[in-house]
Amino acid sequence: MARVVIVGSGLMGTAMAWPLLDNGHSVAIVGTHLDDWIIDSLLANRYHPTLMRKVPPKATFHYIHELPSVIKDADIVVNGVSSFGIHWIADTLSVHLSKGQQVVSLTKGLLSDEQGRVVYFPDYIHDKLSPSVREGSAVVAVGGPCIAGELAARRETCVMFGSRDRAAAKRCAALFGTSYYHVFPTDDVMTLELGVALKNAYTVAVGIAYGMHTPDEAEMGMHNTAAALFAQGCHEMGYIIKKLGGDERQSSALPGAGDLFVTSAGGRTMTLGRLLGEGRSYVQAKEELEGVTLESVQIIHEMATVLEGTWIGEYSIDTGHLPLLRTLVDVIVHNKPVEFRYESFFTAH
Amino acid sequence: MARVVIVGSGLMGTAMAWPLLDNGHSVAIVGTHLDDWIIDSLLANRYHPTLMRKVPPKATFHYIHELPSVIKDADIVVNGVSSFGIHWIADTLSVHLSKGQQVVSLTKGLLSDEQGRVVYFPDYIHDKLSPSVREGSAVVAVGGPCIAGELAARRETCVMFGSRDRAAAKRCAALFGTSYYHVFPTDDVMTLELGVALKNAYTVAVGIAYGMHTPDEAEMGMHNTAAALFAQGCHEMGYIIKKLGGDERQSSALPGAGDLFVTSAGGRTMTLGRLLGEGRSYVQAKEELEGVTLESVQIIHEMATVLEGTWIGEYSIDTGHLPLLRTLVDVIVHNKPVEFRYESFFTAH
Repeated sequence: MARVVIVGSGLMGTAMAWPLLDNGHSVAIVGTHLDDWIIDSLLANRYHPTLMRKVPPKATFHYIHELPSVIKDADIVVNGVSSFGIHWIADTLSVHLSKGQQVVSLTKGLLSDEQGRVVYFPDYIHDKLSPSVREGSAVVAVGGPCIAGELAARRETCVMFGSRDRAAAKRCAALFGTSYYHVFPTDDVMTLELGVALKNAYTVAVGIAYGMHTPDEAEMGMHNTAAALFAQGCHEMGYIIKKLGGDERQSSALPGAGDLFVTSAGGRTMTLGRLLGEGRSYVQAKEELEGVTLESVQIIHEMATVLEGTWIGEYSIDTGHLPLLRTLVDVIVHNKPVEFRYESFFTAH
Repeated sequence: MARVVIVGSGLMGTAMAWPLLDNGHSVAIVGTHLDDWIIDSLLANRYHPTLMRKVPPKATFHYIHELPSVIKDADIVVNGVSSFGIHWIADTLSVHLSKGQQVVSLTKGLLSDEQGRVVYFPDYIHDKLSPSVREGSAVVAVGGPCIAGELAARRETCVMFGSRDRAAAKRCAALFGTSYYHVFPTDDVMTLELGVALKNAYTVAVGIAYGMHTPDEAEMGMHNTAAALFAQGCHEMGYIIKKLGGDERQSSALPGAGDLFVTSAGGRTMTLGRLLGEGRSYVQAKEELEGVTLESVQIIHEMATVLEGTWIGEYSIDTGHLPLLRTLVDVIVHNKPVEFRYESFFTAH
């Protein structure tokens, strides 16, 4: 039995409590500065207001000020913050973690450095840890098609745990995996991280397809267009993964097609896409979404930096193979109207 | 301008009239023996009863008995029958085709011979042509995510035209392609045919996921499970394509993930899957579907023959990499209950 502390009481962080508690581990959930209202509710009656259900018995709930004391005894610390909290969580873990504590990170996304080089979240977190903690440890990143609420409903779910230390990935897979939460360990962190980040970008394109719908006498939809953009998204993910040194075949598995499928099933990124497909500019769409910046938008910005950076030469990326990503950058970063160049899709690479 | 004769006035055959007419070709649609009622309606007012819209002006419509005379002047003959008509169309073309006429085949599916060797539809048709016609000609097969009604609504659509004669594929791509019907030519017929056939089989699995839904206090769906099965389907398509000598990377592009995405959007195969997921046996589900055999079912039967045939050794297929296909064979061919072995998914190959 492990002592697990989950930092971040949002949807995904909290949902991880289900498989962990089912496996008999002790679970302490610590809210961030933004989560006091969630912790209030959890302490009152275990009810999570956005998951819309009660966390199973035995989990404990804590406000952010309790973090230092709660984290001290943890065997495993789960990073459950969103990508906008990546700097905060890295700084926090760098202060509070001690040697031998294993980090499992749920945050999806990526960063770019000044040369336009991709920085993967697990590496970013790892590099900030204090030297004594960093040594001999590796962050385990979680990715794959998993809607938090469905995990909390114990729906059959398949995900990957990736770490540069394969043994750590396997150990955590064994601790977290249940009869409904199927964990596939890998040491190919790069491929996993690229897939689960990039799929957010390409989901915008699928959403745009549905937004482009016009009334039709036979009530026909937009699935052909959505499927073409879905496929081009997978195709481009494969190209980027290959060029950055990963396993492009994963673009048809959990981190690619699988994760893109689940994100395309609904949510705020699809809503953004629909608004763009209906003809709004990104600036207009953002206003309608009440100014909230989405993870997908952040990833498109990071990829714009990568595509425009000096490192692109080292990666030997030919942006001619990425017409869809270039359109997404034009739309989101440069506020241009949507214009897909279908004829330039599906290049052989 | 080409003279095009479409044989089969079902959804897909008729929908091809839109891009062809938009390109200024002459189009004659010939119904099969089953299509007289459709031809009646088309002759009356150009209205297609299942496409639920009028075919654009200038197309001509013909009953089956007119086939010999209509086909005589064709430059291109489009095979628009369903997979259940594959033997009939091959026999018909073998009788009526003359040298220089190009066959473009829309029929999706595959056959197996007695040794369990996969036989591709375009090859099957080609081999039946009379020697003088066969010589120097190659069938062009059409595949990729395309709902017929959406093509007829001129939705943006991306498909592949595949032929062992790449020049023929390119020629036809130029004749059929429009500003909304984007055609990508390839000489890799095998990969195209495997992808567009197998995706029908794996769509059953995606349907099963949604059928397994149980009521939930937070109204959670089944997207995690569907996405896992979707990804495993793509993964297995990649493996089969690789083992049969094709380009496995296409499993994440139009013939794989793209086509699986569009088929998973709805239709009778998804309905079959849902019924199975709700707990019915295949025999029970088939009764509810009024005894209609679906193309997906036929493909699972053919793949069962392949997996059980002597040729599997020549292909060096290890069925341990195909746990999902094996479950589908158990369910559809052997009438067993659904039992997914998630732990055996995503094997490295």
